[in-house]
Amino acid sequence: VAGHGDRVTAPGGGAEPLAAEVITVGNEILSGRTVDTNFAFLAHLLEENGARVAQHQTVGDTVEAIGAAVQQALSRARLIVLTGGLGPTPDDLTRKALAQSLNRPLSLDPRILERLRERWEQRGGRATMPANNEQQALVPRGAEPLENPVGSAPGLQIEVDGATIFVLPGVPIEMETMSRATIAPWVRARAAGAVEHVTVRTVGIWESVLAERLTDLAGHLPGHSIAFLPSIGSVDVRVTLPGVAADVAAARARVRALLLERVGSYVYGEGDATLEGVIGTLLLERGQWLAVAESCTGGLVCGRITAVPGSSTWFERGVVCYSNASKTALAGVPAELIERHGAVSEPVARALARGIAERAGTAVGIGVTGIAGPAGGTSDKPVGTVHVAAFAPDGEAHRLLRLSGSRAIIRERSTIAALDCLRRLLLGLGESAKPD
Amino acid sequence: VAGHGDRVTAPGGGAEPLAAEVITVGNEILSGRTVDTNFAFLAHLLEENGARVAQHQTVGDTVEAIGAAVQQALSRARLIVLTGGLGPTPDDLTRKALAQSLNRPLSLDPRILERLRERWEQRGGRATMPANNEQQALVPRGAEPLENPVGSAPGLQIEVDGATIFVLPGVPIEMETMSRATIAPWVRARAAGAVEHVTVRTVGIWESVLAERLTDLAGHLPGHSIAFLPSIGSVDVRVTLPGVAADVAAARARVRALLLERVGSYVYGEGDATLEGVIGTLLLERGQWLAVAESCTGGLVCGRITAVPGSSTWFERGVVCYSNASKTALAGVPAELIERHGAVSEPVARALARGIAERAGTAVGIGVTGIAGPAGGTSDKPVGTVHVAAFAPDGEAHRLLRLSGSRAIIRERSTIAALDCLRRLLLGLGESAKPD
Repeated sequence: VAGHGDRVTAPGGGAEPLAAEVITVGNEILSGRTVDTNFAFLAHLLEENGARVAQHQTVGDTVEAIGAAVQQALSRARLIVLTGGLGPTPDDLTRKALAQSLNRPLSLDPRILERLRERWEQRGGRATMPANNEQQALVPRGAEPLENPVGSAPGLQIEVDGATIFVLPGVPIEMETMSRATIAPWVRARAAGAVEHVTVRTVGIWESVLAERLTDLAGHLPGHSIAFLPSIGSVDVRVTLPGVAADVAAARARVRALLLERVGSYVYGEGDATLEGVIGTLLLERGQWLAVAESCTGGLVCGRITAVPGSSTWFERGVVCYSNASKTALAGVPAELIERHGAVSEPVARALARGIAERAGTAVGIGVTGIAGPAGGTSDKPVGTVHVAAFAPDGEAHRLLRLSGSRAIIRERSTIAALDCLRRLLLGLGESAKPD
Repeated sequence: VAGHGDRVTAPGGGAEPLAAEVITVGNEILSGRTVDTNFAFLAHLLEENGARVAQHQTVGDTVEAIGAAVQQALSRARLIVLTGGLGPTPDDLTRKALAQSLNRPLSLDPRILERLRERWEQRGGRATMPANNEQQALVPRGAEPLENPVGSAPGLQIEVDGATIFVLPGVPIEMETMSRATIAPWVRARAAGAVEHVTVRTVGIWESVLAERLTDLAGHLPGHSIAFLPSIGSVDVRVTLPGVAADVAAARARVRALLLERVGSYVYGEGDATLEGVIGTLLLERGQWLAVAESCTGGLVCGRITAVPGSSTWFERGVVCYSNASKTALAGVPAELIERHGAVSEPVARALARGIAERAGTAVGIGVTGIAGPAGGTSDKPVGTVHVAAFAPDGEAHRLLRLSGSRAIIRERSTIAALDCLRRLLLGLGESAKPD
C-alpha cells in the first residue's frame, strides 16, 4: 500500500511517467485455477523502462468482456498491453473482440499463415495443420503482427487514435520474450525516464513504529516518496528518488545514510537480500561454521539456510529435535535441565544453541524451542510461546517471543526471529525493539 | 482459456451462478513487486461456494481510483469483494475511498478501537498505540465491521442498493481466514446452488499420462467435466459433477471409484489432504514413529512433516546432515560407504533411512541425498541427481530422481518424492511410474 507511483516526477521536468493499462484475458485466471504471474512481470518491465501501470483488468473469454475492457482502457491510458486469448482453440477470442470493438475487420495474413505451416511441419507429427490453427493468422485491419520466436501465436501492435495497444500471448515464456523484444524498447524510447528506488529490508520492528521513526523523512528528502511493504516477519522500506538522473548514486547514498541513521540496526539488507544470505556472508567473512537445533520450527530454520546456494560451505548440520530424548541425544541438553525448566524455556533454548555447536564442532549455533499449537499450550506457556537463542564466540543471545496466529504463522515468525537473533549477535547489536 | 466455469449449471434449475467482481487495491501489486495470489484464492473460494467471478480490477492506492473501481463494479455485479488498503499507514485509503464514493461518512467505532488497543497491549512493548493505528477503527456509515482473528485491521461488509461489498485486508493469511468465515457462508446461502466437485490429489505421475488414462472418463460419466490442476510435484484431478443435488453422495462415490480404478496408486488423498498428513495417519494407525535424515532437501522434509498439527506424536527427530561427518555422526552412515559410492548414491540414501531409524529408535526412516545446484554437479552426477529412500518394518524402498530446474524446484520435488517413496512403501505399492 505504497503510493510511490503517483508522486514520481521525471528527470529534468515535471512530466508524469507514461501511464499504462494491462488487460489479462482468460477464464482460467478468473476462476482462480491459474495465478496470473504475467501481470507482475509486465508491470515490473513497464516500470523498469519508465512507464507506470495505472490500472489492471482481468476479463473472461468473451468477445463482449474483452471489447468493453479495451474501450475502458482506451478512455484512460495511452499504452495498453493485453495478454491471452491468441491461441488456436474456439475459446481464444481476443482477435475477434479487437476487430469488433475497434471496428477493424479481420483478414488472413498470408505471411503468418506460411510461418504457422512451416512451424507445424518442423515439429513433425501430423502432415497437415489443423484448420483451427489458421485463425492465428487473422489480423485486424491496420494492425502490425509481432514475431513470436518461442511459440506459434504472433502478437499484434495496433495504433488507435494516439494510443498504442500491444497484444501478446498468455503463455508466460512467450509473453516474456516478446514483451522484452517489443514493449521494453518502445517504452524506453517514449518514457520520460526510468524510476529509481532504494529498497531496504528490515526485521524486528513493527511497520507502524518504522513509519513513526521515518515520518519526517520527507523534510530531509524533498521530492522523494516512501512506501512500507510488509510481509510475514519483515517490512521493506522503499524510497522512490525524484527524477534526478544526474546523480542517482549520490541520491541513493543519501537515502541509505538517512535510513541507517534512523533504523539502522533493523536493516538487514537491500534489494532482494535475505536474512539467511546475510548470515552466510557474515559467517564466510569470519571463517566460521553454523549448526542449528530447532524444535517447534521443525526444519524451517535449516530449510531457509540451505536455500542459499553454497550454504554447504558454512552450514555444517541441523537437527530437528522434536522429542526430549533427541534434544539430549543430538544437542547434549541435560535431561535434568529439561525436567527443571520444561522443554520450552530460556535455559533449554540456550543449551540447544550451545550444545549443537559443541557437538557439530562449529563456532556458531542457533537454538529454537516453543509451542506452535494448535494444541500443547498451558496458561503458563500459551501457544505462541517461543524461545530463540544464538551462540557464537562473541557470546550468547536469547529472545522470548509471544506470538499469535496459526501454527504456520508462529513457525514462520519464529524462524525469522531465530535468524535475526543470530544476525544481531554477530553484528554486536543489542536486543530488538519488537516484542512480537 | 479453460472455460469450465461457463458450463456449470445449478442443480434443479438453469439459474446462472451469482456473478461476483473482485477489486485488488495496492501500488505494490500494480508495480509488479508483489504477485496477487489473493485473487486466485478468492476466485476459487467464490466458485467452490457457487458464485462466479465475472471481472477483476487492480487499482493503485488513491481515493479516486478505488472509488471509480467500486462504482464500476456496482454497475455490473451484486457481490463485490475488495482486498487491501486497510492497514494503519497514510497510504491505506480504502476506508476513505469507500466513504467518499458511496457517500457514507466515516466515524470511529469505539468497540474496534478498544480491540485494537487490547491487541496492542497484549503484544507487550510500548504502552500506547501509535495514533496512526486509530484509523483502522474508522467505519463508513452503515457498514458492519468483520472480525479479524489473525490481524489488527477489521474487515467491512456494506450493503449498497441490493449489492453487497465485502472489504478485507490484503495480508493473505488474514484475507483467507476472514473470507472463509464470512464470504463463503454468505455465498452458499445465496447462490443458486454450489457446484459440486470431487478433487483427488495425485503424486508421481505426469499430467499428460494422467490425462491419457482418464481420456474416456467422459463416456462413463456423462455431464461431468474434468480439470487437471498441476502444481510442483503433484497434480489434482477435479471432476465437476452435473447438477444432481439428489444423490450427490452416490455421484461422488462413482467418480471416486472410477478414478481409483484408473490411477489408484498415484492418488494420495482427496480435497485438501497432504502427503505428510496421510503419512501421519498411516503411522498413527500402525503405532509407529518416524525419523528423517536429509541432505540436499536441507530441512524441507522435516518442515513439511512438522507442519502437520500433532506430528509430535509420530515424528521423533530429523537431522539435516549437510557435511559427510554429520551423516556418519547423526545417522551412522559408515565413512567408507560414503568414500566408496560418494555421498550422493543409492547406498548412502538407504543407509541414511535405516541409520536414522536405528539411532532414533523408530520403526520408520526417510533418507535423502542429492545435488540441488547450482554448483556441485559432475558429468557423472549432474545437478538434479537425487536419491530418496525409505525404511520400515515392511522393507526398504529407493528411487533415483533426475530432476531439472532451479535449486528451489529440485529441493521441492525431492521433498515430495521422498514422502511419496515412504507412502508407497507403507501401502505396499510398487515403484512410481514417473521417471522425473
